[in-house]
Amino acid sequence: MRGLFITFEGPDGAGKSTQVQKLSNYLTEEGIPFIHTREPGGTAISDQIRSLILNPVHKEMVDETEVLLYAASRSQHVKEKIVPALEQGYIVLCDRFVDASIAYQGVGLGLDVEKIKLINEFATGGLTPDRSYMIDLPVSVGRERMAARNQLDRIEQKGTAYHETVRGAFLELYEEQQERITLINGENNVEEIFRTIKKDFISLWDNYCKNN
Amino acid sequence: MRGLFITFEGPDGAGKSTQVQKLSNYLTEEGIPFIHTREPGGTAISDQIRSLILNPVHKEMVDETEVLLYAASRSQHVKEKIVPALEQGYIVLCDRFVDASIAYQGVGLGLDVEKIKLINEFATGGLTPDRSYMIDLPVSVGRERMAARNQLDRIEQKGTAYHETVRGAFLELYEEQQERITLINGENNVEEIFRTIKKDFISLWDNYCKNN
Repeated sequence: MRGLFITFEGPDGAGKSTQVQKLSNYLTEEGIPFIHTREPGGTAISDQIRSLILNPVHKEMVDETEVLLYAASRSQHVKEKIVPALEQGYIVLCDRFVDASIAYQGVGLGLDVEKIKLINEFATGGLTPDRSYMIDLPVSVGRERMAARNQLDRIEQKGTAYHETVRGAFLELYEEQQERITLINGENNVEEIFRTIKKDFISLWDNYCKNN
Repeated sequence: MRGLFITFEGPDGAGKSTQVQKLSNYLTEEGIPFIHTREPGGTAISDQIRSLILNPVHKEMVDETEVLLYAASRSQHVKEKIVPALEQGYIVLCDRFVDASIAYQGVGLGLDVEKIKLINEFATGGLTPDRSYMIDLPVSVGRERMAARNQLDRIEQKGTAYHETVRGAFLELYEEQQERITLINGENNVEEIFRTIKKDFISLWDNYCKNN
């Protein structure tokens, strides 16, 4: 009985971390076994790659390197942590996954999206989430929230036009894959957003339990 | 006038570094402008990726991660260092390039070679060497020479069967691309090997000067 793979996507400042935490709390209360992880990172090797990618000192990093480092971090994360947990029947909650690479690196940097997909398929062995919660937010609102944080990482430092393109790419992914992706309005308050996620999760979980 | 891109390939212990050094000395004597670089590494970011790949502590690194890290290091190296040097008319001498990834990661680890080629094309933007000096050596001889070194890195620590497969992959690349690759017997003595390389290089250079 393979577990469920659930990802959280959307721009910085949308409140993904808060929602992953709230769903974690709910699963704990319900006694449903799960792990909570994030990208880039999630294993010792992936965390080292993460700090290389996000270090604001690395201004000379070329776009292709960024893509390949995200994919390298992801393949380690998938094979060392996500797949073994799914095989043991755990629910895996993951903050960001392939959708983020398509939006931020593929569309955002103007690279060939088909190549980004191929590279990520190599990295993940074709693993696709059972459900993705995509929290959408106007760029201005996300950037206002981020400005309150102390130091922006290398990706967060990019300009508004870049982040507008990324938002558009996320929405396009939703248009294409509405069975997998649940779109959520990130301007709603935290409790309202979580009610939407919880309701969707309960129906997903009921369905899963019936079939396993 | 774009410079010439020359790579050195072959197993550990074949004497690549010695030969790159000898060709560097020759170019210096002749007053031909060149740079000397190596993979993995060659830029600050690539060097950090290199130490991640080769650290013997990282025994849990999965094959796909190894492939993607080599490609990430390479894309930075190509765009930050190799292409700008070639555009300024320099000769670029590079210790290892894509052939090594096909042999060590693609064939050696039993991965899909076509995918390795696609990933590397993404990384290099299709840049191919004008000449590759491939120094061939029986695995036993290479391993004897390597045993004299103090500490083996994570790749060097792999067994004899792996290194036999890698040697076979290098020879197959030579069979396929004899115009680009010059095969050299690494059991010959250092001076004899260099005479072969120098003779080949002079004819390549004469041709280049005629056409530029």
